Amino acid sequence: MATTRAEFEEVFTNVVVPGLIAEVKKTQISENTVQWIERNFLHNTLGGKYNRGMTVPDTFRILAGKETLSPEEYKLSAILGWCTELLQAMFLVADDMMDSSKTRRGSPCWYLMEGVGTIAINDSLLLESSIYVLLKKYFKGTDYYVDLLELFHDVTWKTELGQLVDLLTAPEDSVDLSRFNYDKYYFIVRYKTAFYSFYLPVALAMHQAGIATPDNLARARDVLIPLGEYFQVQDDYLDCYGNPDYIGKIGTDIMDNKCGWLVNKALELVTPEQRKLLEDNYGQKNAAAEKKVKDLYLELKLEDHYRRYETGSIAMVKGLIDSVDESQGLKRSVLEGFLNKIAGRDK
Amino acid sequence: MATTRAEFEEVFTNVVVPGLIAEVKKTQISENTVQWIERNFLHNTLGGKYNRGMTVPDTFRILAGKETLSPEEYKLSAILGWCTELLQAMFLVADDMMDSSKTRRGSPCWYLMEGVGTIAINDSLLLESSIYVLLKKYFKGTDYYVDLLELFHDVTWKTELGQLVDLLTAPEDSVDLSRFNYDKYYFIVRYKTAFYSFYLPVALAMHQAGIATPDNLARARDVLIPLGEYFQVQDDYLDCYGNPDYIGKIGTDIMDNKCGWLVNKALELVTPEQRKLLEDNYGQKNAAAEKKVKDLYLELKLEDHYRRYETGSIAMVKGLIDSVDESQGLKRSVLEGFLNKIAGRDK
Repeated sequence: MATTRAEFEEVFTNVVVPGLIAEVKKTQISENTVQWIERNFLHNTLGGKYNRGMTVPDTFRILAGKETLSPEEYKLSAILGWCTELLQAMFLVADDMMDSSKTRRGSPCWYLMEGVGTIAINDSLLLESSIYVLLKKYFKGTDYYVDLLELFHDVTWKTELGQLVDLLTAPEDSVDLSRFNYDKYYFIVRYKTAFYSFYLPVALAMHQAGIATPDNLARARDVLIPLGEYFQVQDDYLDCYGNPDYIGKIGTDIMDNKCGWLVNKALELVTPEQRKLLEDNYGQKNAAAEKKVKDLYLELKLEDHYRRYETGSIAMVKGLIDSVDESQGLKRSVLEGFLNKIAGRDK
Repeated sequence: MATTRAEFEEVFTNVVVPGLIAEVKKTQISENTVQWIERNFLHNTLGGKYNRGMTVPDTFRILAGKETLSPEEYKLSAILGWCTELLQAMFLVADDMMDSSKTRRGSPCWYLMEGVGTIAINDSLLLESSIYVLLKKYFKGTDYYVDLLELFHDVTWKTELGQLVDLLTAPEDSVDLSRFNYDKYYFIVRYKTAFYSFYLPVALAMHQAGIATPDNLARARDVLIPLGEYFQVQDDYLDCYGNPDYIGKIGTDIMDNKCGWLVNKALELVTPEQRKLLEDNYGQKNAAAEKKVKDLYLELKLEDHYRRYETGSIAMVKGLIDSVDESQGLKRSVLEGFLNKIAGRDK
């Protein structure tokens, strides 16, 4: 059975946080600092959807071919899941500062909380470091310990490269559509999001299950990265065309000058006059300009283009999954489960 | 012979930077991003004194009992040295933002450079990640590879804990001397500075030399951490009493509300009236208030207290060095070299 939020959070509350705080306390640090660190861990790690984190035990269970994991298996798997959530927390705290965001998961961003400010930079670093404290505490001695360290290093580095391209391509305050193109778009999607959100949790479960051969990892990556791309294109589409009541937020990609799928598709299709309209109105912080861009999107029939893209993507990913060789222990059902969750979602 | 800046920089220019850039280019990232990353590496890593970095080959050479290292031995040792410099660069970029500093090594701080701003947060993360790219590239396959990874994780985590205590104890804009005490002072010194500046480079050289037994590491740490404390107390003393023409900067610890050795010593000695004067004038951004604090320091004869502390510290560290057991390959001369460089310095 798939893990539940309650089960998954229970490992955070009873194992991850006490484990980290025990390591902190070994240093004889002052009590107010312990409290600060605990607040940092709780505020920035709890309250999300845990899609990435919960993927680790869910995938491990399928790879291990079990209906239910033993308590010890589940605990280790959930700790790896929490390591992915800590990595995300580290990035979200840093990204919110770089993007001047205001809220995250319905609360003020961490750097905007009373008394935090730029201390959030160091707090973000501590979230990252805590991953390695946990891996050492619970995985040193396993034969895949070094693989876990290298996997986190590699995915962290890739995510930072993706974030850098994003920051340089689409700064909020300087609109220049000539910087946008599909190469950059797909680089950002793959590096900033797909590796840590799609590949990382599955690769972690594969290591725990003892089937992380270089071949198997490459096969999983070859499916999961395109799947992550498709997921992000959907996200970009829903930002503009999704129902805000349903997706839980009002899309701001046009006003925020995002290098998203829709604007790249539009740039491919526009006449010189339409391009001028796009250049004058994209990334402007006013509703009238946003409306003009949205009207142009309608004129260009971007919805139809998206539907074609979506059909093609799903078919391609299905083809990749069908061709996965299961002889070394990788299971197509893991990857099919992902595709089924994502295909055709409207929030 | 001790390494020179020119030799050490040559490994950066010919090995470290090309190696990192080659890894970046494998991702097919856009050319403007490659240039940005190269500028980040060069601006933030070059131009310091390289005391920490050059300690690695210097210590390794002594531990290996050689007059001159082979080119390959030197290269590997210098790469480890550059990893310590990259770790420092990562912290300096982040700390400058947290402290609102203006210049670093005579140039504007990275976040204040044209077009950088908060992108510096991600650049700081990339400096850190590049350590693990280098370790994987040059040390995977050695029998001490995992030890290197764990050493960097551990020292990074400790430095972040020290930075957090510093930020919470002595925020520039909120003066509250009741937060200061020696426990916090020594915690900050040890964790924020001594581990990465004193212990890390020696421990790296010990791993390369194959003598990093748990016992040897503990003995080295037991000398190097007190030595790092003494170094920082000196630094605090020189900030107030050093000759600016000679030490190359004008001390600002009093105005900056730093939890330094002098103010902690003063707090130990003051009468209630003197404490009131200190509370009214410490951490104020004006020269008249600073003068009042300095006059109080003269009244309290802090120079004499410092001299007594210094004599005691040197004697203690000498005692610790004398009691080091060399039977497992650690050499007292490594530690004596450090002490001789530091004892009685006036800049």
